[in-house]
Amino acid sequence: MIPYLHCLLATSLLTIVQSAMAQTPKRPRDYGIRFGVLPTGPFNAITDVPGVLVGQVTLRQDQTIRTGVTAILPHSGNQFQQKNPAAIYIGNGFGKLMGYSQVEELGTLETPIILTNTLSVPTAADALIDYTLAQKGNEQVRSVNAVVGETNDGFLNDIRGRHVTKQHVLDALKQAKAGAVAEGNVGAGTGTVCFGFKGGIGTSSRKLPASLGGYTVGVLVQTNFGGVLQIAGVPVGVALGRYDFKKNLDGSCMMVVLTDAPLDARNLKRLAKRAFMGLAQTGGIASNGSGDYVIAVSTAYQIPHETTSSFDEQKVLRNDNVSPLFMAVIEATEEAIINSLFAAQTLTGDQGHRVEQLPVEKVVELIRKAGQLH
Amino acid sequence: MIPYLHCLLATSLLTIVQSAMAQTPKRPRDYGIRFGVLPTGPFNAITDVPGVLVGQVTLRQDQTIRTGVTAILPHSGNQFQQKNPAAIYIGNGFGKLMGYSQVEELGTLETPIILTNTLSVPTAADALIDYTLAQKGNEQVRSVNAVVGETNDGFLNDIRGRHVTKQHVLDALKQAKAGAVAEGNVGAGTGTVCFGFKGGIGTSSRKLPASLGGYTVGVLVQTNFGGVLQIAGVPVGVALGRYDFKKNLDGSCMMVVLTDAPLDARNLKRLAKRAFMGLAQTGGIASNGSGDYVIAVSTAYQIPHETTSSFDEQKVLRNDNVSPLFMAVIEATEEAIINSLFAAQTLTGDQGHRVEQLPVEKVVELIRKAGQLH
Amino acid sequence: MIPYLHCLLATSLLTIVQSAMAQTPKRPRDYGIRFGVLPTGPFNAITDVPGVLVGQVTLRQDQTIRTGVTAILPHSGNQFQQKNPAAIYIGNGFGKLMGYSQVEELGTLETPIILTNTLSVPTAADALIDYTLAQKGNEQVRSVNAVVGETNDGFLNDIRGRHVTKQHVLDALKQAKAGAVAEGNVGAGTGTVCFGFKGGIGTSSRKLPASLGGYTVGVLVQTNFGGVLQIAGVPVGVALGRYDFKKNLDGSCMMVVLTDAPLDARNLKRLAKRAFMGLAQTGGIASNGSGDYVIAVSTAYQIPHETTSSFDEQKVLRNDNVSPLFMAVIEATEEAIINSLFAAQTLTGDQGHRVEQLPVEKVVELIRKAGQLH
Amino acid sequence: MIPYLHCLLATSLLTIVQSAMAQTPKRPRDYGIRFGVLPTGPFNAITDVPGVLVGQVTLRQDQTIRTGVTAILPHSGNQFQQKNPAAIYIGNGFGKLMGYSQVEELGTLETPIILTNTLSVPTAADALIDYTLAQKGNEQVRSVNAVVGETNDGFLNDIRGRHVTKQHVLDALKQAKAGAVAEGNVGAGTGTVCFGFKGGIGTSSRKLPASLGGYTVGVLVQTNFGGVLQIAGVPVGVALGRYDFKKNLDGSCMMVVLTDAPLDARNLKRLAKRAFMGLAQTGGIASNGSGDYVIAVSTAYQIPHETTSSFDEQKVLRNDNVSPLFMAVIEATEEAIINSLFAAQTLTGDQGHRVEQLPVEKVVELIRKAGQLH
Repeated sequence: MIPYLHCLLATSLLTIVQSAMAQTPKRPRDYGIRFGVLPTGPFNAITDVPGVLVGQVTLRQDQTIRTGVTAILPHSGNQFQQKNPAAIYIGNGFGKLMGYSQVEELGTLETPIILTNTLSVPTAADALIDYTLAQKGNEQVRSVNAVVGETNDGFLNDIRGRHVTKQHVLDALKQAKAGAVAEGNVGAGTGTVCFGFKGGIGTSSRKLPASLGGYTVGVLVQTNFGGVLQIAGVPVGVALGRYDFKKNLDGSCMMVVLTDAPLDARNLKRLAKRAFMGLAQTGGIASNGSGDYVIAVSTAYQIPHETTSSFDEQKVLRNDNVSPLFMAVIEATEEAIINSLFAAQTLTGDQGHRVEQLPVEKVVELIRKAGQLH
Repeated sequence: MIPYLHCLLATSLLTIVQSAMAQTPKRPRDYGIRFGVLPTGPFNAITDVPGVLVGQVTLRQDQTIRTGVTAILPHSGNQFQQKNPAAIYIGNGFGKLMGYSQVEELGTLETPIILTNTLSVPTAADALIDYTLAQKGNEQVRSVNAVVGETNDGFLNDIRGRHVTKQHVLDALKQAKAGAVAEGNVGAGTGTVCFGFKGGIGTSSRKLPASLGGYTVGVLVQTNFGGVLQIAGVPVGVALGRYDFKKNLDGSCMMVVLTDAPLDARNLKRLAKRAFMGLAQTGGIASNGSGDYVIAVSTAYQIPHETTSSFDEQKVLRNDNVSPLFMAVIEATEEAIINSLFAAQTLTGDQGHRVEQLPVEKVVELIRKAGQLH
Repeated sequence: MIPYLHCLLATSLLTIVQSAMAQTPKRPRDYGIRFGVLPTGPFNAITDVPGVLVGQVTLRQDQTIRTGVTAILPHSGNQFQQKNPAAIYIGNGFGKLMGYSQVEELGTLETPIILTNTLSVPTAADALIDYTLAQKGNEQVRSVNAVVGETNDGFLNDIRGRHVTKQHVLDALKQAKAGAVAEGNVGAGTGTVCFGFKGGIGTSSRKLPASLGGYTVGVLVQTNFGGVLQIAGVPVGVALGRYDFKKNLDGSCMMVVLTDAPLDARNLKRLAKRAFMGLAQTGGIASNGSGDYVIAVSTAYQIPHETTSSFDEQKVLRNDNVSPLFMAVIEATEEAIINSLFAAQTLTGDQGHRVEQLPVEKVVELIRKAGQLH
Repeated sequence: MIPYLHCLLATSLLTIVQSAMAQTPKRPRDYGIRFGVLPTGPFNAITDVPGVLVGQVTLRQDQTIRTGVTAILPHSGNQFQQKNPAAIYIGNGFGKLMGYSQVEELGTLETPIILTNTLSVPTAADALIDYTLAQKGNEQVRSVNAVVGETNDGFLNDIRGRHVTKQHVLDALKQAKAGAVAEGNVGAGTGTVCFGFKGGIGTSSRKLPASLGGYTVGVLVQTNFGGVLQIAGVPVGVALGRYDFKKNLDGSCMMVVLTDAPLDARNLKRLAKRAFMGLAQTGGIASNGSGDYVIAVSTAYQIPHETTSSFDEQKVLRNDNVSPLFMAVIEATEEAIINSLFAAQTLTGDQGHRVEQLPVEKVVELIRKAGQLH
């Protein structure tokens, strides 16, 4: 009944799913690197926000296919029927994110969030529509605002071949789970490049002290951008001689922010804007060609698609209580980006292009010399 | 080589293409109805802007399929290599328009514009990517900002079936031509509903006097919205007892504006905003559920994708010369909307839903009584 | 103690305050002209929204001074301590409205709203600061976001002389009251010009049926803009030969919307945008030189400046219940603008400039002929 | 003739003008601290952009008055008649900046830029109107979009007393000059607080290599915000135990960017947004209460207020050439902020409030230990 084609070809791809990614590389924090002053949640991941699920499908085949899909679900229920307050901030709009205007207008998210490569956005959006139409309770749904973000992995991946299928997206949604999140060359980060090194998926979280509400802020990033890399303030990019500020700075950064703090769309947009400040902390410059977007979602309350009441009753954080959340999202975004670099591994791909991973040991040594290991 | 599946099923649909639409119903202007004070171009159509092409594919099959595709091309060349200055105004963002943020950020349009139904936006975007990647000269293109607008024809059309294929979109692009444009139940307007009557595609244009620059402004609309219908100011909706302002006002309106006036993206956005005022003139209220978008494009100059120069040299109209264009686009949008209603014909569709056409003779009589026939 | 200079010069001006304006000209509705389909409130004025107060100071002296101040208060209490949810929509930003960004960021209004002439905005803002600092309970206030709108009355008024003083603004605030609101050549509308006729202050309201919530929407406008005048859809401007669409269309329109519907800032911004559609209904085109702004405020709940709670608890109207309010504000804005024209009287001012009032009897006759008198 | 009151009282204030500020404290760069990778201009100041002038008036009197005015002029001519392309980016809109909407709508700056304290914005705007109306050639001007920014110096300054007069503003404009710019407790930075230390005025510049166009980007900031201070990436705030992320993080940051790169308003807005990233580099978090605005102006070409042509002919930098400017403005903003902290001196003010200056020697030692002295 589900109206997508189960493509035989697709299944013949070497689809490495998240659960198979046995790698558990040391994360920056394991080396003693600290980002900011707030504590992390237990997984130091977006999934520290209760109820949030992440699923990833990684596509690596032949010498050419280096791409994938990352799905983020605010909750495990029917997202269309139980929407979350949400906002999208456009840091630099050279990108193909889909779903912006309705989130902006209505302040709600009605599908899970999918990240993938630039030219696979329509496929992912189509899969989200399939997914939504097929869910129980959505039999009468005729309008779906699919939210899909992307970065361009066309240096390592045969992006013109558009190898992501709807089934891959549905698989990522299906496999979504709580707990630790794979980082580096996985999902939508499989083929990305960041600061001239191999980028990928990264995640981090912060938990505010109880006196400030005890809220958790989780961030997941797909890193594919440039600038002059700093790690915990240490000018690593300059030290390694690996930076460039000329015209063709590739790349983009998708940032997804989840929080259990009770924020409405207006304050979620303000929160989203601060994630962009976390990107700045890593030395990113949001170059002309960069598509830098932040999608921010609160899990604190849900807005039903239909209800007998004419009203939404919301207990939201006052404006003058949001600043600690701003701090939290800046720190978590910075750490999520650096986490993606630490986890990513050297990769050769389409047309023989090769991107080296961050030389972690050298970097740690630089940070040690700067007195920033703790 | 072109990576879309030529679907056998699709060809068995009763695809009525534009050229086969022999209907030439009388337009409001043929009855002596006038909208505003400025003269129209020769076709009173968006194609009065030199170089602009329109192609439409209409899908009517069985009792369920009532949808289609309308393509608007600013020029017949390679749109990706020769971009046009462009802007998008969001009147009410309850919609799924794709391509917004990059147009906003860079001020350029790099694909033709496709209009279709809500759930077929991903398919249409995918087809635009196919189209662009396959064009000669685009062999190295790895990033495409497809611009697709939509309204929801789910009352008359089995929208959940998603019957628009990539081939339909490619066909619409291929058939695009200058000259008269079919209106009413065609292309993306096949299954739409407007003010409780059958809506559809409409188009109109205005030509400024030479003393004001002699520029042409053309508008094409896909009408699917509600309110209290006025025609040339006459409260037709009230007179016919056909209006509603309750909670479930369906609908949306996509408006595409082309002009040969030399405007940059900033002034194109201002122009786009005035099209929304033209919608207001018809009695539209941009209800909560309406996705009202205006895409405005200038054909006066092109911005090459690549060039040896670091600069764009632009001769653009000064701010204090744009007001007559504002007037022109308001008038043309109003007339395009009413044109869609005059051309549309009673249609029965999915689930036996039936929407009556505007009772044109009664309407003309009301306008005559109001002294507004000229 | 209040730190403004009580200027002796100012008091020697012929300050005609609102209460002295004994004129009660017939309003369009008294002639049988109807705008839309919804009923008005008892005063057909912004003050139909419970608690809203309006105060006006009119300055007419010698041949040169034709200006004034209009104050709108959402409630009679301490606005800084008890803020209202609010939003500002910028229709066309060629204007000097003050206070935009903080309302946009925080979603609240913390001063009354003042309307005056373009070059007196700083004076009015300064007076609002005086007013706020001096209020009981505000002894520790060190930051005030004064909201001041304006249009340019420089054709009839010696605007360069800046004859509005802080005292005039404070007087307008002090005199603010409920009930009927003077229209035409009063307050901030004393010297304005609209569609080539004498403009001024106008107001109107709509009350939704109980089945749609029973809410009231009130609008007050300061009309100073151009286009091709329509009244209840009748093309009066063309019939009277009084329109122009050339480059120097002067003018602006300030629109203030109050409602007791429980809307948060996001939906207030959407409501504000619809007022701009009401302007379009009158034939306004938002020309290049027009500063068209809408300030929308809800009186349904207040947001305290300080409180022991970390939360705001809000019971707000759901998105899918706002459309009738959109209709209401479009109708009320249209009627308020036309009301301003009916009330305004021929005026001669600075440099001997003279602006004729709308020829009301002729206009009514035109509307009668169009069958639009009820 | 000039219609402001030359207040005798004002002249009795201890007005310390810029020229009298003989202090030339060592700047961070003098200690060997480096921010980014690009070279500075000769003064490392906003005035490195040819033609740009800065004037400052500092008010320190008794124990209560600690405020002032900083004026930035894009050129020494008649700004109203020869406007510059400009844009304003709102980082966090909790502020009272005046002039936003017209700059946004028209893309031009028609007055010099004034910075002062929050409650003196109206006075400064009024003075800018005086200044503009009185300039030769502006005899017919009846509309002036004064651009005034502010931060709140109410902790050290008796801000409620509003001690800035129009004359102070006019003096700042008059004294504006090229060359070195005083930093720290001067002008609009006299009473500001930054990261818990004494803040103030700071400035910096970058000059791109000839291969990237050779353009200069200059930044001037008024620093009054919080977060966790980083200097050249070194976590100084944590090391000094001087940071706070609780609810009442005071403050704001005004950033003014000038460049001789030929950018239109759209790309100036993008440039402005990157200055906000420079603020992030210093550890700023744009807290709820912060008014963070960037005004960006190009001096590369001027747009005449009146001309016989209907067109503006512009030779502007292409989108794909702006990224190096983005890098430049990030670096210069970061350095300007830190410059303000190095120059500012411990100050006692209103109500006996005292704010310590940054302990520069300790800070330099921390940076030395981190290996970041060059």
